Order: sequence, then C-alpha cells, then structure tokens
Amino acid sequence: MSKKSKSALSEQEGVSSSEITNPNAVKSIKSKRKLSLDTNALTSAILKGDITALSRAITLIESKNLKHLAQANDIITACLPHANKSVRIGITGVPGVGKSTFIEAFGAYLTEHGKRVAVLAIDPSSSVTKGSILGDKTRMERLVKNENAFIRPSASGESLGGVARKTRETITLCEAAGFDVILIETVGVGQSETTVHSMVDFFLLLKLAGAGDELQGIKRGIIEMADAIAINKAEEDNLKQAKLARDEFKRALHLYPEKASQWQPRVTLCSALEETGIDTIWNLIQEYLEKTKANKYFDKKRQEQNKFWLLQTIEDQLKASFFNRPEIKKALKTQLELIEANKTTPFAAADLLLGLGKATD
Amino acid sequence: MSKKSKSALSEQEGVSSSEITNPNAVKSIKSKRKLSLDTNALTSAILKGDITALSRAITLIESKNLKHLAQANDIITACLPHANKSVRIGITGVPGVGKSTFIEAFGAYLTEHGKRVAVLAIDPSSSVTKGSILGDKTRMERLVKNENAFIRPSASGESLGGVARKTRETITLCEAAGFDVILIETVGVGQSETTVHSMVDFFLLLKLAGAGDELQGIKRGIIEMADAIAINKAEEDNLKQAKLARDEFKRALHLYPEKASQWQPRVTLCSALEETGIDTIWNLIQEYLEKTKANKYFDKKRQEQNKFWLLQTIEDQLKASFFNRPEIKKALKTQLELIEANKTTPFAAADLLLGLGKATD
Repeated sequence: MSKKSKSALSEQEGVSSSEITNPNAVKSIKSKRKLSLDTNALTSAILKGDITALSRAITLIESKNLKHLAQANDIITACLPHANKSVRIGITGVPGVGKSTFIEAFGAYLTEHGKRVAVLAIDPSSSVTKGSILGDKTRMERLVKNENAFIRPSASGESLGGVARKTRETITLCEAAGFDVILIETVGVGQSETTVHSMVDFFLLLKLAGAGDELQGIKRGIIEMADAIAINKAEEDNLKQAKLARDEFKRALHLYPEKASQWQPRVTLCSALEETGIDTIWNLIQEYLEKTKANKYFDKKRQEQNKFWLLQTIEDQLKASFFNRPEIKKALKTQLELIEANKTTPFAAADLLLGLGKATD
Repeated sequence: MSKKSKSALSEQEGVSSSEITNPNAVKSIKSKRKLSLDTNALTSAILKGDITALSRAITLIESKNLKHLAQANDIITACLPHANKSVRIGITGVPGVGKSTFIEAFGAYLTEHGKRVAVLAIDPSSSVTKGSILGDKTRMERLVKNENAFIRPSASGESLGGVARKTRETITLCEAAGFDVILIETVGVGQSETTVHSMVDFFLLLKLAGAGDELQGIKRGIIEMADAIAINKAEEDNLKQAKLARDEFKRALHLYPEKASQWQPRVTLCSALEETGIDTIWNLIQEYLEKTKANKYFDKKRQEQNKFWLLQTIEDQLKASFFNRPEIKKALKTQLELIEANKTTPFAAADLLLGLGKATD
C-alpha cells in the first residue's frame, strides 16, 4: 500500500486466526488485498490526472503477466464511466512528411488553448526497430516538457492486433485522466493506417507538395479515409507548389462519393516548422465535431468502432486458438502436402481439419 | 445403376441371408451400393467428357442434401488426378461493357482453335436476381449450341463464400471432363472480383473508352489485379477514343510496381461484336502462360490459391459455428448493450464471449 487511507472505513492489514493456519493463504490474501487496493489507488490517481499513475496503469496493460492484465482490466472498467469525452485524432503520412514536427506544433497549440493532449502511436514495426516513431522522444522536446501533454510510444513486441488493443485501452485511461485531445500517430505502412482509422473520430493525412504519391494514396484507400489533408512544409519558397498540390487533392476528393459523415473532406496548407496553418486545422476539426455531433454520426461511428473491435478480437482469438493446437498444426501440414500432390481439395482438407478440431475439443 | 457392367468381376445386386433379417439394413446397403456405383459411373463418364454426367455431378455439388454432397466429394476426389490441366481465365467488367458478347466471341474463337471451353460465373447477386449473368443463356446463343462449350450459371441462393466453393469444385470437374480453357465471368460488384481473382491463372479486365471509371478501378484494386485490360467496342467510329483510353491505361499500369509474376500487364483493343482483337488477347494469354510456367510462378500461384481457400474455409466455418450458437447470440446482444452503455470495453466483452464459447463447447 502506497499510503494509508485516513477514512474510518479503512481496513487493517490483518487476517483472521483461522486463516493464519495456512501460510500460503496468508500470502495469497495479502497479495489480493494489495492488488485490490493498488487498483483502487491507481484508478483514483488516474481520475485525478496523475501522470505517474497513468503510466503505471499503461505498463500493466502492456505486461505479459496475467495478474497484471487482470488488474489492468479492473482499472479500465473503473475508468470507463469517465472516458469517452475526448476527441481522438489519427495522424498519418509517409516518413519525411514531418509528422513529429507537426505533432510538436499541434500539441503546443492545443495546450496553449487549454487542452490536455495525449500522444500515442500505432507502430507494429517498433518490435523490430525498437520504436521508430515516438520512441525517440527527443524529436518532441517541447511536448515532453509540457505538463499538459503525455507522450507514450507504441507497445513493442506485439502483432498489429495486439498493439491495437493496447492502444485502444490506453485511450480509455488517458481520457479518464482528463486528456481531452488524443493524437494517434501512425506510419503509412501496411494495415496500420486502417487500424488507426478504426479507433479515431477524425483522420488527418499529412502530405508534401510534388511528392507524386497521389496514386499510391488512392490505391491504398488512404485518401478515402482522410477527413482532412494538410500539405505540410508550405513555407515561402514552396508555397506555389503547395497550392498546386492542394488544388489537385481538392479535385481528387471531389471524385469520391459523399461520406457517411456527410462531411466534405478539406485540403489545407500548413508549416509545422513555422507553425502556420495549425489554427486552421484545429478550427476545421472543431467544425467537423459540431457537424457530426449534430447529425449523430459521431456517436454512431464510435459504436460501430466498438462493434468492429469486439468482432475482430473474437475472430483473431478463434483463429489463434484453432491454428495453434499442435494436432491441427501437424494435420494442416499433411493436408497442404496432399493438396500440393493433387490428392485432396482445399475444401475437403478444411472439412477434415474442422472435424479434427471438434473431435479434440 | 444406369447400365450393367459386362465384366466378369461385376457384382450382383444381392445381400446375404444374414443381412436380410433386418429390412433397414437391406435398404441401407442397397442405397450405399447404388450410390457407390453411381459415383463410379458418373466419374468415368465425366472423365470421358460426358456433358450430361458433368451436369449431374455439378448438381450434386450444388445440392443442400448431405448425401449428395458426400457423393460430390467422392467424385471430386476421384477427378482430382485428372484435373488442373486447364488455363483458368477470369473476366470482369462493369455492366454494359459487353461481357456476354465477348465470351461468345472468345469462346467461338477458342473452340475453332481446337479448345474445349467451360464458362462459369461468380455472381452472388444471382440469389436475388435469379441469375443476372449467364442465367439468360440466350445471350450466348452460339456458344450454347457449340458441343465443345459448356456453360453453367452461378449457383444461386448462396453466400459469396458458398458460390466460390461450388465454383472451385466445378472447375475441377470441368477440367477432369477435358475442358482446357475455363472462363469465369463476374460482375464488378463488391468482393466478387477478388474472389474470382483468387481462383484463376489470368485476370482479364474489359473496359470501354471514355467511361471515366478509371479512378473507381484503381480505388477498388481491380486495375492492380488485371493481367490484361481489353478496351472493348473498339469499332471504326470509336477507334480514336479507344486508342486514347488504351494509352491512358498503359500509363496508369506503369505506375504500379512489378508483379510477382514478373508479367507486365498489357492493354489491348477489341470488338467482341465484330470479333476483332480476340486473337491478340489469346496470344497474349499464351505468352503469359509461357512466361509464368517458365519462371514457376504459375504453379506457385495455384498452390497459394489452394492454401488461401483452405484457410478461408476454416476461418468462415470457425466464425459461423461460434456466432450461430444461440447462447453466443444472446450474450453478444447483451455485451453490445453494455458497450453502448459504456459499462464494458469491446475487449473485455470479447474475452467474456470467448470464455462462454469454451464453457459450452
């Protein structure tokens, strides 16, 4: 216990004499009491906005220890009624577009305007590169020192699904801790953008003028997901090009059908370095929030995201628990060989494996 | 039994006196013998290229009757060593592009060049529209009368997954029956193109000049899947526009990275109506086959497709058998309500449902 409660209702750390006959029982009861008190203590500290408590709870979320995970779940459940009040903003863009500089400038702007800002990341590559984004906090020097900002790199050593779950849970804790803007950064690699899109209210795409990757963005469906595109590095010597790029993206966006949000995505210019255009971006996000809260899309989207994560988690688990069984692994190998030898079809093989799964349940 | 075997090894339809004491046993044994003989008879007729037998076997594949499905599986397994020798070509394009006319012309060309052609379809919408493609065989009048062509519409009343499985199994039977070119038509709707792409060797996209749906094709990933794009209706009065469209698509294709097949997709002109450009398309498919058989991509792709279908079938079944349980349906509803009321997270809810699934296994 970190500190004694001053309430008259406080419990003494003691066990009854009947229980004391078994030393293991004492240990177990003590550890349970400790955990339970820690959980309450952590939760109330988080609700008071205590950054240290928040960090500790996130560490529990990221732990491999089942006891820690159980405690994390208790804290999350206790935090839930106090969560959900923030705006969650996804920020993406190719390496070199200036994401870190942008988040520094955007975060500073927001805290100057009375907001508390949490910066998280989805970076499944971090398990290999040990955190290529946010890992190096020195790139966000000002924000790190800002007491109204909280920066947490992506959980490492996890699959995208694992990182996603931990980040979603971290959002809940940050919201309960009173952070009213959650920025979630991602790199434009693989499925990570789609994952971030499925957990944010607003999706901001950072672009450079003349990068020539428009087709890439269209192909990968990123343009389609964007609620706003900000052409970064729109500084004096680059302004003409930036404006051309803005007009091109505006034209491209008009080719898409209207979004379910009824929001027409915007294209805007900014310079994260010179901190220009940042206010325009925040204003258009405010406009988006007003519109989508009025037409009920905001809540509907969050509900749909919840449903998506529920189903996705179940599907991932069903697959994992089937394919990880030793007898299935062995049979799968055999069936694949039979398919290759043209002795069975994928469907007959699937039926056989599913039957084996049932028989050994 | 359709015909008596003339072999001295032929079995008499009779049962021993001990078995005859139970009339149900007689019935069961007789029906099993009949089925087994029918299976053999059907299989050997299919291997001789008998269209009636082929049609009957496909009807078994499409049946809802479990006995029929078991018999279908036996026939498919028996046919497997004789299958796999065809070239499978997927053909897609928006409604109005002239798919039926193209398949008429292409099919006629192929049979004139000594090929036997089977035309199948993936059309999950057919359950609603009662077969919008291939259903109306009058649109392929010549091919229907052609004894070297076999046309079979999409199985109806099925999910895309169901149609896909039945079509894949039908391909095996058609190949065993000696059809050396399998054309699989699909409409450009939803996921059906991706499904067809996952079961063919070569994917042909039909386009019209000036249709203005290039972006749509890029967005939906169709352009990326195409091994060739044929601009149809390239008739005299439309030739200039068709050539412009061809050049545009050529430019667009060059923006994509090299395919795993090392094949550079082609763009070509044709008129299904005037039967021009059909030979060019067949020649380039031949060129594709030569290249991908030489670099081993052809076999590798078929193996990967088999693996994909094996895993896909298992995943679909795992999900279906989990979510269709009455107790899971009920609990899922409750959990979704709790999520909406902010009383649990999608992840905690998923854990609870998975636990319930295990407890009631």
